[in-house]
Amino acid sequence: MANRLLIVVVEPDPDRAQPIVDGLRDTGDHDIRIIAEPSGLARQVAELRPDIVLIDIANPSRDVLEELALAAGPEQRPVAMFVDRSDEQLTRSAIEAGVSAYVVDGLRPDRIKPILDAAIARFHILQRLRTELIATRAALEERKIIDRAKAVLMKARGIDEEAAYGLLRKTAMDQGKRVADIAQQLVMAAGLLGK
Amino acid sequence: MANRLLIVVVEPDPDRAQPIVDGLRDTGDHDIRIIAEPSGLARQVAELRPDIVLIDIANPSRDVLEELALAAGPEQRPVAMFVDRSDEQLTRSAIEAGVSAYVVDGLRPDRIKPILDAAIARFHILQRLRTELIATRAALEERKIIDRAKAVLMKARGIDEEAAYGLLRKTAMDQGKRVADIAQQLVMAAGLLGK
Repeated sequence: MANRLLIVVVEPDPDRAQPIVDGLRDTGDHDIRIIAEPSGLARQVAELRPDIVLIDIANPSRDVLEELALAAGPEQRPVAMFVDRSDEQLTRSAIEAGVSAYVVDGLRPDRIKPILDAAIARFHILQRLRTELIATRAALEERKIIDRAKAVLMKARGIDEEAAYGLLRKTAMDQGKRVADIAQQLVMAAGLLGK
Repeated sequence: MANRLLIVVVEPDPDRAQPIVDGLRDTGDHDIRIIAEPSGLARQVAELRPDIVLIDIANPSRDVLEELALAAGPEQRPVAMFVDRSDEQLTRSAIEAGVSAYVVDGLRPDRIKPILDAAIARFHILQRLRTELIATRAALEERKIIDRAKAVLMKARGIDEEAAYGLLRKTAMDQGKRVADIAQQLVMAAGLLGK
């Protein structure tokens, strides 16, 4: 939290919003926006693109909690949620909805900074894991589709694997596309042609 | 936290341990072990195989914090850490060491249950992601090694891809092994033989 952050605070009750804002002001010179009307939160957050979203719900129902957590975009930015009371089911719902901090009856201004620090650090760890998983999955899928495209070419043209890959690669270079994209198109077309 | 849990509490100070144990007792009929001497924590935890580890450090240094967090085995079980004070760097170190809950100045007996609930839920989410990443990585590596083994066979025996895969598969079945393991051995042997 070294730099100036754009922080969105979701809090319909002005009396509860003020101590939160005071607590945040103590942590640095941040740009703080209060959203008092949580309907349309997803759109408002998407427009503001905050660095972190802090949601306070005195007495959450599971539906409201999940809706707000997801609307805040927990895969795009850290989301910290403060509630006055919870139970095991609610807690699990919040964590599974992706909130980076879930604090029960702990909203004291002087505790906000370590909670936001932890939420940010945790968000980055999850983000790293998710990014790596997406990249690894994509690499595996590309390998599979390239293999299938090679097999199609080897059979259709009676060429060996190396020649098939060379052909895919040359076509990709000629068209300024990726080998995996050419492979995908070839497999699709071969399917249509009944090859 | 529906069932009886084996909970390890790491707390050298008996005066601080008692309210923690009281707070835990209120959450259910758990089996609670206190480790007052944190040296050798990794061994003690490995022997006990607890469902969750709760570490209390009044005033942590970064080294102690990281050492205890890692000794508790945060990839095997949820680890919750309570400290009296922290800063951004310490908080980040704890989260990156893998603790599922990091609570600054918040160790109140009645707050323990929601914190443990959250730590357990968070641990399972991370565990799922890690397991999926490991499996996807393994699938990609296996595909690569099988591809290399097929290429070795195709070249050495002048056979096509299908026949090469068939040969790997038959050998694997005959030996009661996985195709990827046979492929790995073949690639290694081919390397030794200069093929």
